[in-house]
Amino acid sequence: MSFQFICISCGHNHDPSQYRTLCTLCQGLLKASYSRPLTTDGQVRTGNQGIAKYIPTLPIENPHNIVTLGEGNTPIIRLRSMESKIGINQIYAKLEYMNPTGSFKDRGNAVQISVLKELGVKTFAEIGAGNTGHSLASYSVRAGITMEGFTSDVDKDSTKVKVIQQTGARLHWIHGDRAATVQAKNLYCEETKTLNLTYHLNPYFIEGNKTIAYEIAEQMHPLPDNIVMTVGNGSQLLGLWWGFNEMIEDRRVTKIPKLHGIQSTAFQPMVAAFHNQTWLPRSKKYTVAVGIRIPSPPRLQEVTEACKQSGGNFLAVPDSEIIKWQQQLNNLEGIFVEPTTSVTPAGVAQMVQKEIIHPEESILLILGGFGFKEPLP
Amino acid sequence: MSFQFICISCGHNHDPSQYRTLCTLCQGLLKASYSRPLTTDGQVRTGNQGIAKYIPTLPIENPHNIVTLGEGNTPIIRLRSMESKIGINQIYAKLEYMNPTGSFKDRGNAVQISVLKELGVKTFAEIGAGNTGHSLASYSVRAGITMEGFTSDVDKDSTKVKVIQQTGARLHWIHGDRAATVQAKNLYCEETKTLNLTYHLNPYFIEGNKTIAYEIAEQMHPLPDNIVMTVGNGSQLLGLWWGFNEMIEDRRVTKIPKLHGIQSTAFQPMVAAFHNQTWLPRSKKYTVAVGIRIPSPPRLQEVTEACKQSGGNFLAVPDSEIIKWQQQLNNLEGIFVEPTTSVTPAGVAQMVQKEIIHPEESILLILGGFGFKEPLP
Repeated sequence: MSFQFICISCGHNHDPSQYRTLCTLCQGLLKASYSRPLTTDGQVRTGNQGIAKYIPTLPIENPHNIVTLGEGNTPIIRLRSMESKIGINQIYAKLEYMNPTGSFKDRGNAVQISVLKELGVKTFAEIGAGNTGHSLASYSVRAGITMEGFTSDVDKDSTKVKVIQQTGARLHWIHGDRAATVQAKNLYCEETKTLNLTYHLNPYFIEGNKTIAYEIAEQMHPLPDNIVMTVGNGSQLLGLWWGFNEMIEDRRVTKIPKLHGIQSTAFQPMVAAFHNQTWLPRSKKYTVAVGIRIPSPPRLQEVTEACKQSGGNFLAVPDSEIIKWQQQLNNLEGIFVEPTTSVTPAGVAQMVQKEIIHPEESILLILGGFGFKEPLP
Repeated sequence: MSFQFICISCGHNHDPSQYRTLCTLCQGLLKASYSRPLTTDGQVRTGNQGIAKYIPTLPIENPHNIVTLGEGNTPIIRLRSMESKIGINQIYAKLEYMNPTGSFKDRGNAVQISVLKELGVKTFAEIGAGNTGHSLASYSVRAGITMEGFTSDVDKDSTKVKVIQQTGARLHWIHGDRAATVQAKNLYCEETKTLNLTYHLNPYFIEGNKTIAYEIAEQMHPLPDNIVMTVGNGSQLLGLWWGFNEMIEDRRVTKIPKLHGIQSTAFQPMVAAFHNQTWLPRSKKYTVAVGIRIPSPPRLQEVTEACKQSGGNFLAVPDSEIIKWQQQLNNLEGIFVEPTTSVTPAGVAQMVQKEIIHPEESILLILGGFGFKEPLP
């Protein structure tokens, strides 16, 4: 496989043999570009497990550099009780929380950390608090790479943070909120020349999420009409979009499902942008969906554009619905997810009510975080 | 597929068309017996997910009765840092916690609940507290079957119990310890003629665990020399034993790995029986490995016999080692498991030290419960 990184703003090509976050010319965001066709059926269906199965589609040169915890290969099951409840013919869920650290973040991080290993990077800095931090810390251990985790002291009692500490990640405790923690991380990286991972900016994490699209194409025939997911930075939606577009180009699939994003009403920059409305971030806003407290997602325009092009839509749901649907999903289907994830069924119910999705269309929900990873709300 | 249940004590054959817990003649334990050969490669490797893939080997007649949450199909990964740490050439782990409710219990419960559905049972009673309770409650929801859960009020603050409540299981709160809760359940079932599931006695749960053996045989070539696991009731060890023996008879495999069991020093009836020593249960004993606080496992003799016949061994580890290895496994490999599960690596370390397992032999650890399902010790 041969690939380059292309700046989505100025179009400049970047050699992938060093770690890339942004375009060095214009600070634009990057996207990988591969020689076509990426894959044949034979290449992908090798019986390998984890992201190794999809290496021809990933920015990793040598399979020996793959760092894996057995991520991916998550099941898709039908939700018949939810179908009856909201009046839809076919609802399915991809249980993305059945990943090694209990969240879909493992796919993107398996790719990020494999790339660091391939490039010989020994240390990086990232926020060490949520599902991404836990997942990154775990993959770093497997790679023998040191994670410098920046953690706000408001999270000192969090189980996730304690689990991150157990991995041996070097935690830097910051007195202040998340914004202060990001600032401290950036300053530290500048001063010490430590690699600033910035998973929400770089293209590697999203590349890992493409594997969700490849799996769906193997698991569902026909493909679902709609795929619905929780959106914070939007890297999952973008990964699906990139993945399905690659498969269209390679003629592995003939259509792309409509990709819909759901946010919390407390943090809805994507929803606003999608509907051409203004939304001003307020720092004191609260949502029980802790994983998507993201006021300024860096790829906002790309994500909303992908959603539009796929024929998808964006809406926001209040905490009351998020909490209600965490219970409902467990009560209807025996599936227990984090509030950040129950944003998705709450949004689906609203999309059906608002006739954005029609009863005869099929829906696939992406359920990204296991319920036990957060305290009950 | 055609099968019967055979009493392991008196040899009597029982028709499987009703739910069976014990031999109706002598109260002996039951084991399923199938017509041979059970499977061909073609039959098992169908691309079905969950236990459906293994239906020819399971006590379910009609595939339409299968109740699934996408269980099984868990990855096996290599643990290179643990290899260096304890001086063994090859250590692998099967991440059985990557199941829909976060524990290996989902395999056995998928089978139990599918059987109840097939037999038209609408309600059953079981203890509603730990991983088994959570898993059973989840599968019951999927099947439209009511679980009457019996729960000690000492567990009223447990997250697992709250999650079980969310599923809609009918909880009966019992004032007293686990023994009192079992007694209350038995009395209730007698009085109301409710089916008393008794998953630790019946053959269905163990039948589900056979699928672990089938998967290992598909995933590892050659098979590991040793398989090591935490043992409470021993249904996982017995499931592996039954599964590997079926595959020997069907010539799907040519050897059976040594099956080793690890217990907590606080509850070690199996270890004692295996080494022909006496062990007296004391009710006030404590271990951090909450899932294996089992003083009198009903299949003790069968489990220790299976272990012996496979060439395996049994030992017990103290809480200090269990807690240490919960951290170690996370620190060495980025794998975060429950204390009940970290009993396994703690035991492996001791087996190597005591030269029960030699450096040139390969080891597979079964890691059954996700770390986030229990509070940190």
